[in-house]
Amino acid sequence: MSLSPLPRPVILDGDPGHDDAVNILLSHASPELEVLGVTTTFGNVGLDKTTRNALTTLALIGSQTPVYAGADRPLLVPRLSAESVHGQTGLDGPLLPSATREAEILHAALFIIREVRVRPGEVTLLPTGPLTNLALALRLAPDIAPQVRQIIWMGGSLDVGNWTPAAEFNALCDPHAAQIVFSSGVPITMFGLNATHQAVATPERIAPIRALGTTVGEVVAGLLEFFAEHHRERYGWEGGPLHDPLTCAYLLAPELFGTQPMYVEVDISGGPSSGRTNCDLWNLTGRAPNAEVVMTVDADGFYALLTERLGRL
Amino acid sequence: MSLSPLPRPVILDGDPGHDDAVNILLSHASPELEVLGVTTTFGNVGLDKTTRNALTTLALIGSQTPVYAGADRPLLVPRLSAESVHGQTGLDGPLLPSATREAEILHAALFIIREVRVRPGEVTLLPTGPLTNLALALRLAPDIAPQVRQIIWMGGSLDVGNWTPAAEFNALCDPHAAQIVFSSGVPITMFGLNATHQAVATPERIAPIRALGTTVGEVVAGLLEFFAEHHRERYGWEGGPLHDPLTCAYLLAPELFGTQPMYVEVDISGGPSSGRTNCDLWNLTGRAPNAEVVMTVDADGFYALLTERLGRL
Amino acid sequence: MSLSPLPRPVILDGDPGHDDAVNILLSHASPELEVLGVTTTFGNVGLDKTTRNALTTLALIGSQTPVYAGADRPLLVPRLSAESVHGQTGLDGPLLPSATREAEILHAALFIIREVRVRPGEVTLLPTGPLTNLALALRLAPDIAPQVRQIIWMGGSLDVGNWTPAAEFNALCDPHAAQIVFSSGVPITMFGLNATHQAVATPERIAPIRALGTTVGEVVAGLLEFFAEHHRERYGWEGGPLHDPLTCAYLLAPELFGTQPMYVEVDISGGPSSGRTNCDLWNLTGRAPNAEVVMTVDADGFYALLTERLGRL
Amino acid sequence: MSLSPLPRPVILDGDPGHDDAVNILLSHASPELEVLGVTTTFGNVGLDKTTRNALTTLALIGSQTPVYAGADRPLLVPRLSAESVHGQTGLDGPLLPSATREAEILHAALFIIREVRVRPGEVTLLPTGPLTNLALALRLAPDIAPQVRQIIWMGGSLDVGNWTPAAEFNALCDPHAAQIVFSSGVPITMFGLNATHQAVATPERIAPIRALGTTVGEVVAGLLEFFAEHHRERYGWEGGPLHDPLTCAYLLAPELFGTQPMYVEVDISGGPSSGRTNCDLWNLTGRAPNAEVVMTVDADGFYALLTERLGRL
Repeated sequence: MSLSPLPRPVILDGDPGHDDAVNILLSHASPELEVLGVTTTFGNVGLDKTTRNALTTLALIGSQTPVYAGADRPLLVPRLSAESVHGQTGLDGPLLPSATREAEILHAALFIIREVRVRPGEVTLLPTGPLTNLALALRLAPDIAPQVRQIIWMGGSLDVGNWTPAAEFNALCDPHAAQIVFSSGVPITMFGLNATHQAVATPERIAPIRALGTTVGEVVAGLLEFFAEHHRERYGWEGGPLHDPLTCAYLLAPELFGTQPMYVEVDISGGPSSGRTNCDLWNLTGRAPNAEVVMTVDADGFYALLTERLGRL
Repeated sequence: MSLSPLPRPVILDGDPGHDDAVNILLSHASPELEVLGVTTTFGNVGLDKTTRNALTTLALIGSQTPVYAGADRPLLVPRLSAESVHGQTGLDGPLLPSATREAEILHAALFIIREVRVRPGEVTLLPTGPLTNLALALRLAPDIAPQVRQIIWMGGSLDVGNWTPAAEFNALCDPHAAQIVFSSGVPITMFGLNATHQAVATPERIAPIRALGTTVGEVVAGLLEFFAEHHRERYGWEGGPLHDPLTCAYLLAPELFGTQPMYVEVDISGGPSSGRTNCDLWNLTGRAPNAEVVMTVDADGFYALLTERLGRL
Repeated sequence: MSLSPLPRPVILDGDPGHDDAVNILLSHASPELEVLGVTTTFGNVGLDKTTRNALTTLALIGSQTPVYAGADRPLLVPRLSAESVHGQTGLDGPLLPSATREAEILHAALFIIREVRVRPGEVTLLPTGPLTNLALALRLAPDIAPQVRQIIWMGGSLDVGNWTPAAEFNALCDPHAAQIVFSSGVPITMFGLNATHQAVATPERIAPIRALGTTVGEVVAGLLEFFAEHHRERYGWEGGPLHDPLTCAYLLAPELFGTQPMYVEVDISGGPSSGRTNCDLWNLTGRAPNAEVVMTVDADGFYALLTERLGRL
Repeated sequence: MSLSPLPRPVILDGDPGHDDAVNILLSHASPELEVLGVTTTFGNVGLDKTTRNALTTLALIGSQTPVYAGADRPLLVPRLSAESVHGQTGLDGPLLPSATREAEILHAALFIIREVRVRPGEVTLLPTGPLTNLALALRLAPDIAPQVRQIIWMGGSLDVGNWTPAAEFNALCDPHAAQIVFSSGVPITMFGLNATHQAVATPERIAPIRALGTTVGEVVAGLLEFFAEHHRERYGWEGGPLHDPLTCAYLLAPELFGTQPMYVEVDISGGPSSGRTNCDLWNLTGRAPNAEVVMTVDADGFYALLTERLGRL
């Protein structure tokens, strides 16, 4: 694969959501990345809300990055949502500015297809929600699979889930879409719960963000504090794991993360393990790896990076 | 639903295939129908061949109906094909003219979306292969579901299958797509094997078609004779069941068919019954019907209609 | 297999139930058969009731055939029951005598094991309920499998089910047990719904039984009339299909039935087709047959036989 | 539950196997336990070999504890075995004495039923292989479930498997049996791989066992060294995790282990996660715990205990 010139073109695909929103901010604060667009999907809340939240987050920093709405439902399973974690708006907590524009007319999947075809081998996809948009793009245009540079996904888990004992929320939201992506041949890096739970936003890590003294710092601190409440109650933790921005940080500072190549298959059986990302840690199946699974996270390094970048906005 | 003016706009979606080809001919011989386009999918053979076969069949009658290629693979399961039934070309048997044009650039699913949006409530879809194109269209544009007038599908079975003990070929080729379509809310009429096996193309029924004395008559007779061989060997029947043209005939002469409304669910468990269309004949689930399942076929009436129509070409 | 001398030793295993009760009566009226015991299982109603019903039915004819209670629940699925068909007692309808004795102490599965070991190659099992007892026997004593002469089961279906769209009641009650039995290597004859629905107890067929003028005739007529009600309401039929006594009749007059050898696999996927007996009618799997599936029933012949035999009691 | 008087009656059920053999030795070296019997099952190798290995291990210490052979195959899945780990005999490595007696005539499941009925509320079961014997006992005699004092099982995993990415060997060998046991209501303590992998038999831990200078010490050291080879090659570890004797140690020194109550469900879907023990670590299902899952092991404490006890033999 030829190296693409800097900045590296990326598409953020997600269901904002507190941590998705921080990911949008982090990417826009990073000159190494060129955000071609933000695509949205159902997930933490419904598509209308996640799309509005993407626009709102961009409005906070005056960005004109185009937003493309995508899937409003999974391929096959009933639709889930996570208001218990993210509140009714999907972005409960601090006050955010109203968006002054709308999403583009083009469907998220068609936008992804177009960009990959225009820049073959260059576009990196950063999905942080259910993988329905990517699955639709891959099935509608199988020719793009060899032309996507990389997919860095927040989702799945090497060990236990957070929505069922077996499954993580993003994977469970659309297991069939996830399996389409994992069997596509595109190089994937997976930030599962086993990784993201290493990056909890403790009060000590939120404080420097608030101390930036900027509007963005204030908003992000507010988001993280709201997010923390749910995790304190359910898991007894000091804060919420900042799942999604790890995908962006991986592009900016890969040295913060330890990964291991392995074969990953998503359970679509409809049984009690549906949505589980079965990670072949010991190569028991003998199948060639289709993903780099993140095993270790330098959490302090990550929060230092995040804080520094947010300070630029 | 308001009645659409005659002729009724239809899109033929299939994987020609001997019986798909006859369906293309029957539809073009019928002034009651306006064929907006022929869309193709993988199935009996690969997408390249089914697309070429659609173009070839249209070339036989000098038709300029546009052809749109669609899915080259199922959503999730490994790709099947049926060369054992249809030969290497998918249309083995009589000599057909070469196609002098190509398929359109637009993807079949996008063509379906466009036509339904342009003519809300009017377009009838006649799929006679795996339902992947329809599933992609329905997931990419959920707004079209209430605007499709009707889907008349050849596929599934009330009783046993023809590719596994549980599943019919078209359903088995993409069970997930079939389940997306059956759960879409669009009115569906299903011609399963229990119906199509009532319409075997016996020598007595082929003879009048050949006796038309036309090129089309000669070609169709040749197709049916080739198709018969496989069925004589495997099932001990006098000929092949002319599955696909029943969908078109249903629009032309509904009085030839007896149907019963019931709830149909496609098995996507991955178990031994995967791809089975579970038909709730006795309303055991208490769920509202989502399909009219064809139970009886006036086979002689059907062949009379077919012969008369082919005589017009 | 060496021929066993007449009378042929049989064990009736079931969940009486109206049709099971008639099967008990038919077997005891037939000198060709030696009923070694009646074993009971949960099913139409709970184990306590089916055991009492077996004892009651035997009391009606003054028989001392021993009764062995077996499984009170399925191997894995939640327990079903069919009071909607058989009433609260499992044998609602005519007044039956009270049983004056209890079931034996030995578990049904252990009784089956003992009898098969004592008479290797001779014992025929006639299960007419869930197959849990047989499955337990086969797993506890795998050595008996080659020594069971034959299993003649009422259960399953070649086409649609009667408890879910896919599954017949006896199969659905314990799909795992059924799959253990079908994969055991014992020769099986399966009377599925496709067969038993050919033997409806119409008023014309009940009349001669009542006309016997005996207590037994009166009771059986009463049972069949009670049984008919449910089937009139749900299916619109003239009476209930007399499922279970067909197994006994098959031993007495095999010429009344047409069977076809095929491979049968029970769906244990936990999906919507769970409990379905997938019958490989066209040998699509290429697997060797493990069952004779009954395809045709001479219903008039069967009712004539039944009436004649009941007249002997 | 009333306390049973010391010594505590236990039944060891397993598929020896290196670590099963050490468990047999540990139990017999411990006056706190009264070993009622050793029951065997297929698993690491076939039933004939595991039974011989149990007898051989008992011969080593001159014990007359009765041995009862049980299941030679799983309830439903194809039989697995683990010669790659345990060698052709199932107990490859050091030379062991020949057994001078045979297994008892009674089936393992019937022995378990008998002992539990004789000592209601007192018997603890220590299964260290597939759970087929326990499942057969529980289904054949549902009355014993409330009378089993406790089940302490080596099997399953909270995180990844060792035979498939999802499943541990003992669970995978008979997922249906495992699910019968976990849904039985008997109090269960589960030593999954997440626990046993904390207790690797490193050279430093084997040395004191050899240094005992006894025959038993020599044999156990030899077993552990043979066992280590496989784990060095596959996992890159310094030795093999001594899975099975943890169950016995848990009774002797519960303070060495940290457990957490949770709901555990075994995947029997037949999909890629079949055999996985889904552990509801975060109580996401809201279901009441049915197991104590071992989370932490004081490995040094365990090996000290083991060495001390083996020194008594």
